[in-house]
Parts: sequence; structure tokens; C-alpha cells
Amino acid sequence: MVVNTDRFALDCITRLRLIETGSQAPLNRKVRSKMKISARNIFRGQIESVKTGAVNSEVDLLLSGGEKLVAMVTNESVQSLGLAAGKEVVALVKASSVLVMTDDSGIRLSARNCLAGTVKTVTAGPVSAEITITLAGGAEVHATITHNAETELGLKEGSAATAVFKASAVILGVPA
Amino acid sequence: MVVNTDRFALDCITRLRLIETGSQAPLNRKVRSKMKISARNIFRGQIESVKTGAVNSEVDLLLSGGEKLVAMVTNESVQSLGLAAGKEVVALVKASSVLVMTDDSGIRLSARNCLAGTVKTVTAGPVSAEITITLAGGAEVHATITHNAETELGLKEGSAATAVFKASAVILGVPA
Amino acid sequence: MVVNTDRFALDCITRLRLIETGSQAPLNRKVRSKMKISARNIFRGQIESVKTGAVNSEVDLLLSGGEKLVAMVTNESVQSLGLAAGKEVVALVKASSVLVMTDDSGIRLSARNCLAGTVKTVTAGPVSAEITITLAGGAEVHATITHNAETELGLKEGSAATAVFKASAVILGVPA
Repeated sequence: MVVNTDRFALDCITRLRLIETGSQAPLNRKVRSKMKISARNIFRGQIESVKTGAVNSEVDLLLSGGEKLVAMVTNESVQSLGLAAGKEVVALVKASSVLVMTDDSGIRLSARNCLAGTVKTVTAGPVSAEITITLAGGAEVHATITHNAETELGLKEGSAATAVFKASAVILGVPA
Repeated sequence: MVVNTDRFALDCITRLRLIETGSQAPLNRKVRSKMKISARNIFRGQIESVKTGAVNSEVDLLLSGGEKLVAMVTNESVQSLGLAAGKEVVALVKASSVLVMTDDSGIRLSARNCLAGTVKTVTAGPVSAEITITLAGGAEVHATITHNAETELGLKEGSAATAVFKASAVILGVPA
Repeated sequence: MVVNTDRFALDCITRLRLIETGSQAPLNRKVRSKMKISARNIFRGQIESVKTGAVNSEVDLLLSGGEKLVAMVTNESVQSLGLAAGKEVVALVKASSVLVMTDDSGIRLSARNCLAGTVKTVTAGPVSAEITITLAGGAEVHATITHNAETELGLKEGSAATAVFKASAVILGVPA
């Protein structure tokens, strides 16, 4: 599948700090300086399908780097944003919504989004810690966890780690 | 629409720290000292409508300051709390559920709650930062974001900023 | 009701750091050293019922310590994990999803999960604070709140406190 991001890029890339996925080039300073929202995780992708319920809809995305992502939004948002298969969107996830798993052997989770990678950086404070995980395609995912959890997991640069978050943690955005 | 908050106030204001909205007077120390829950954001409002699905319901609120708010709760809660149009409620939102957006030009989000205002204070730690945004009517909204996001957004006193959170981040409360 | 956790324990306990509930023995260092995920709250329980909607399902749990817990997950997860009444699961809750309430008199909340206990420890940083609450049965619940909220609530060792979180904040896990 080819994601035509050119026009969307013109509309959107310069307005938001994007976590580049897959084959995307790293962000330059110019783009970063134009970011407008505090969400640490902003993924670009295309809608594969929308499953509509009575009040909520599940939206399945294919990220430009090849990963799958699932979002749960209200039907009202599906309508007002015109969300439908084929539409290009950005998916925003707050770092505080992301768990870090260092070994998934033996357990399966209901969380629909699991992105595997390698710990790039650990920034620890007295209570919180911010973990940056680099995915296989080069994208980065940020998670804030407690300092205690970070210590107990023994997270350090180069550790294998998976970022986990629920579909309900994802906010979708489209060009106005 | 006139929201009669007098009786609800007697029931509720002295028990919870309220973020005053619109025409409300600032909280005095006496009220603040009686707050009972850690949610940094507590809004007072009246239910406009309840849209019920199979397991979840969307509840639309009109805040006493005139803002609209949307909450997603389980049908069980709608029944046990007697949520229905006209009922007065408080809406609680944890600061960690709130994103901060400094410019919404060019992007529309699925997040149902967006409250525009001005940055009042920025408290930064090594990993986290707490941002307080004053809305037009005088109400305050608190957000915890990463220190990195706060730095990259260049948030400072007086900056225009919008607090963004999903309907699923809202907890509703009613007098017992 | 008797929860047969023996086999599940073999499958799962050694893989995850479990918050022991009710009659469970405290975790030893060996088990703690094998934890694999950053979620500070991991409860063990058995599914009592699954209520399925159009896209989401509500899952009611009975924890091994006797507490009730409610989770909201997608139907897709219910199917892929084989969630059904009687099945043993773990429930994961990020500390940042948990509110702390020090007095619930006079207010009823839509949040489906409220666990009452006593503050064991308060770890405060410049922006955040981690609160550990010991439940009646000996289990521990962790919450990260703002330092400001912690100060205003006057939380300290021995204070009565209730951990509050939404059903949508719960992730379920099963042995692979």
C-alpha cells in the first residue's frame, strides 16, 4: 500500500511535530520548532477501516512506517472530521497514556496498541521518568512512567522495550 | 439558559474544590481547604443531553461559565447516578489527561473537549510540568505535560493556549 | 467464591509483578525482580461477566482479595483473549490513571472503580507525587497525582484514602 502523504504533508507537517515512522527522514529543527501541541507522540497514517457502534467508533490505522494503530473515538468525531477508510490522519497519544513492557512472553494484553523497539533515552526525576523508545523503522515513542517502575524494570539505553497503550488513549487529527 | 446552582452549591461546593467558571467568584481559602479529591480540574455544569449506547453513554454538559463539555461514562453510571437532561453535576478531569495546544490553526481533533485560554503559570520539574490555563471567564484548567513538551511549546505566562481532553477522560459526580 | 489461582499463578505470577490482594502473601524479591511491565497496579482476578456492546465490552471482575473491578475493552480484545465468565485475568492500571479521594461523603462518582484504604507512603517531587494506598486486605494501589493536589489534600502516612479510576483505564491480560 502506498500512502500519498504529499498533500497531507503540506497541510499538516509544518503545523505539528511529527514522530516520523518507517521510511520517513528524521525531523529537522525547522519542523520541530513549529509543533503546536503537547502530545509527545504524533503518528501519521491512513485509515483502513471505521467500525461504528452506538456512541463510539473504532478506527483502524496503517501508519506510514507500516505499524497498525487502533483508536476509539466518538461517532460525533467520526462525522465532524469525516473519518473514513483511505483518509489520512494524525494520531496523538499523550506520553502519560503509554506503558512500557520489557518482555511480553507469556502474557497477552487487551491493549490494542503495542509498538516494539529499543530504549533510546531514560530521563528520571524524583517521581516520574520519561522513556523514549526507538521503533524498528526509526520512529520514536515517548512514555512517562513512575521512577519506581523505571528502576524496577531496569530500563537503560539499548534495552528491548514495547510501548503499550489503549485505543481509547488515541486522539485523531485531520487538516482543517 | 439559567443554571440554578444554589442548591447544588449547598450540597456540593463545600465538599469539592471547584474550578470556578464564567461568572463565578474566585474560591476562598475556606472552600479550598475542604476539597476532597486529587482531580485538579473540577467543573460545575448541567446535563444537556444523554446519548445512550449499548454499554457506554455520551453525556453533554453546559458548564456554569457557558462552555460545553462532553463525557463518556458507562450506562451503569448513568443509571446509578440518575444522569439525565437538566441534572446538575460536577465534571472531574485529571491534569494528566489534559493536552496543551498553542495553535489550532489547520488541524481539527477528535478530542471533544477544547478549552481556550491563557497560560497563567508554568511549574516545571526535571520530567513533568504543570501548566495552569485561565479561560476567558476566569476559570482555570490544569494540565501536566512533560517538561520537554513544555519547553518545545515555549509555554510561558500570558501565552495563548488551549486545554484538550477526550470525553473518556471525564468523571461525573453528583451529590449523594 | 473460590478463585483457583494455582495454575494461573504458574503461568503468570512469575512473569508479572502482582499487587497481592486479600489473602495473598506479600511478594518476595524473586517475583518482584521478574516483573515486566511499567503498570504500577496489577491485580489478579476472575471474570464474573462480560457485557458486549457494538464496539466495546464491559468486563466485571472479582479480585482474589474480594474487591470488584470493572474494565472497558474493545470487542476485538474480548474475542482475541477469549474473555468470558470464569476466566482468570490480570488487570493493569497505570498509576497516572488513578485519582485519590480522601472523603467520599456527599458525592457519588461515575468512575466505576473505587478502592478504599490507608495511605502507606507519599513520594513527592517538584511537580508530581506518587501515593501508595494499602487496601484492607493488604493489597497496594499506586497513584501519581500533582504535588499541588497532594499538598492540598494533606495526604500523609496513615490517612484514609480511596483510589478512584475509570473502567476505561483498565487493561486486561491473560496467559499467552
